[in-house]
Amino acid sequence: MSLAERWLLPDGVKEVLPPRAQKVETARRRLLDLYDTWGYELVMTPLIEHLDSLLVGVGRDLELDTFKVTDQLTGRMLGIRADITQQVARIDANHLSNQGPVRFCYCSTILHTLPANPLASRNPLQVGAELFGHSGVASDVEIISLMVETLNAMQVNQDLSLDLGHVGIYRGLMGEAALTADQEAEYFELLQRKDLPEITRFLAGSGLPESVKTHLTILPTLHGGREVLNKARTCFADVEMIKDALDYLDAVADQITRRYPQLDLYFDLSELRGYNYHTGVVFAAYVPAFGQAVAKGGRYDEVGRDFGRARPATGFSADLKTLVELSALEDKPARKVVRVPAVEDSAALDAVAKLRAQGERVVPMLDETVVEDAQQFTHQLVQQDGTWVLESL
Amino acid sequence: MSLAERWLLPDGVKEVLPPRAQKVETARRRLLDLYDTWGYELVMTPLIEHLDSLLVGVGRDLELDTFKVTDQLTGRMLGIRADITQQVARIDANHLSNQGPVRFCYCSTILHTLPANPLASRNPLQVGAELFGHSGVASDVEIISLMVETLNAMQVNQDLSLDLGHVGIYRGLMGEAALTADQEAEYFELLQRKDLPEITRFLAGSGLPESVKTHLTILPTLHGGREVLNKARTCFADVEMIKDALDYLDAVADQITRRYPQLDLYFDLSELRGYNYHTGVVFAAYVPAFGQAVAKGGRYDEVGRDFGRARPATGFSADLKTLVELSALEDKPARKVVRVPAVEDSAALDAVAKLRAQGERVVPMLDETVVEDAQQFTHQLVQQDGTWVLESL
Repeated sequence: MSLAERWLLPDGVKEVLPPRAQKVETARRRLLDLYDTWGYELVMTPLIEHLDSLLVGVGRDLELDTFKVTDQLTGRMLGIRADITQQVARIDANHLSNQGPVRFCYCSTILHTLPANPLASRNPLQVGAELFGHSGVASDVEIISLMVETLNAMQVNQDLSLDLGHVGIYRGLMGEAALTADQEAEYFELLQRKDLPEITRFLAGSGLPESVKTHLTILPTLHGGREVLNKARTCFADVEMIKDALDYLDAVADQITRRYPQLDLYFDLSELRGYNYHTGVVFAAYVPAFGQAVAKGGRYDEVGRDFGRARPATGFSADLKTLVELSALEDKPARKVVRVPAVEDSAALDAVAKLRAQGERVVPMLDETVVEDAQQFTHQLVQQDGTWVLESL
Repeated sequence: MSLAERWLLPDGVKEVLPPRAQKVETARRRLLDLYDTWGYELVMTPLIEHLDSLLVGVGRDLELDTFKVTDQLTGRMLGIRADITQQVARIDANHLSNQGPVRFCYCSTILHTLPANPLASRNPLQVGAELFGHSGVASDVEIISLMVETLNAMQVNQDLSLDLGHVGIYRGLMGEAALTADQEAEYFELLQRKDLPEITRFLAGSGLPESVKTHLTILPTLHGGREVLNKARTCFADVEMIKDALDYLDAVADQITRRYPQLDLYFDLSELRGYNYHTGVVFAAYVPAFGQAVAKGGRYDEVGRDFGRARPATGFSADLKTLVELSALEDKPARKVVRVPAVEDSAALDAVAKLRAQGERVVPMLDETVVEDAQQFTHQLVQQDGTWVLESL
């Protein structure tokens, strides 16, 4: 391997160097402190687990994303976490003593075998929050609000838009339509692409009843402002499950609008992200500066079942490194950067310790011939009349 | 896989749950803030890299410790970092613009295929600092001091002992002794175990000159207080390289004692930890409560060579989770924990936002029938005469 190649990181793998790393650290603290004030307890999940524990519940879709290795102690398959949500669900399932709501937050690196999209990182720093043990609008509104507060705290909120959907709409439609498995797979795939011409062609040859065809043609067009909910209510008036989902979305939208009147709400009733594990409302936040969702989440009530305790759950997550890239925050450290000569007398050492205890940065010259070009000194410590005093540079 | 097994983590893999996770987070902040005041810049190295980049320099000994996976994008071998030092060396080698000293610190999870000892974690949270670009006592003293300050800041310093060694002593002896490769391998192994009877037996049958046998017999006995240095000076008076190493240790010990007069110094001249990459002084900190070193490090001047830039380097690291376990610190959050009923009027929402902005924890009852047993409430927000007021519980 050549020298130049040794410098190269694998494609899509990113390191964070100074001064950016300090910004990420500041953001981490800001968000974890925010979550703490909302009652969310920090958890540090293991980077590696038995593969069987990782690929259940919310993790079911992560098979291809997960790096797999063999445990040399046991020969069993282990996985490097590709998501943290299912780990937190395992932890909630373990805490059998808590019957009421439990709130967890986290901020840790995950790994993906392949980038989620050509520009995505394979080692995102996932930050998020999960609320277990409550089913209903109140907990979804709390989680969505905390997601909005996350973006506000990071100043990633210029022209912020909140997308809302509900998997109950598609589920209700499928319950009514009675497609074959092949038909459903094909429709699902076309719907994800919102490929209207192909959907029309597919339905034309499907032999399905006209009413079903009408419904399946309308669904991909149901996105836009609040009026979409009313339109859907008219179109799907006869499907009870869809009516419930629309009522739910209405209630969530009411409360979110009361809390964030400026926030732009967008409804997409064919949004199927995480369809395999989501059980209710799904949401994502977008800003014009970024082509993907900057944060997203949803309800996933069944997730604990694989660990023996099916508790209702809702949560969101984001990539902290992306948030920092998009952030308008300027977190410049206000501390002084003080140069001190290479001395060993105790008065100098005391002066240095005192400045550091006050939060100032103090860097000793290791010897007089060495140039300290890595620091941007603002002050120096000099000896005047036998005492050490701080001098501006 | 049974339900009960899904709860189990792999042996030696640890998760950190509340409230311990918050303690680890507090410790992380405390130490990174300490390093910042000493001029050390935070870096966040990638969790995964090309295996060839990980297993060079300081990483040469990590082949067996490193989990390996195939990059699906390229087919090349990747490794999950089993150490961070060699990654930071790569970063220093990349920063060609800095000719003078550069200081880096980090706090990130690493993974080991096997635990370093039966009680060790396979997913330590490695915290540490590295100083590049200066060769000499001043930088080693700075790094050792920062290691001591780390333990002081964590209050892991009850009966703290600092072990000092220098690989130049063993190297000097080997240069003089002219053993065969097999002989050196055998002696190295016996020396690591300090197995004196076996060393005597080995030397008796070795056919080596008497003077060499004497030296090789004495080396494993050279551990103890400062007097060990003088004893070694007498024994090895004729080996120049050893004399230099002893002078160096003397100079380091003088400066450390001036800074930390209470610190117990212990010298072990046959300490060979990291012999393959260390090039000078090696050090480790011990407390009676823990059977292993709580922090350790050393000089490794050649480490950047594999990345095209051999800069002098010295550094230390520790497992932050171990430090937290051993810490006498009591970091109880002073904030209030406030219960607020499930209300939606804007006066209540304002009161909640204001309390959170002040750093208090406020948790809304998601509905009136749900028991919030996960929180230890100290206050509640109640409506009195139309305004929301805080009430002690």
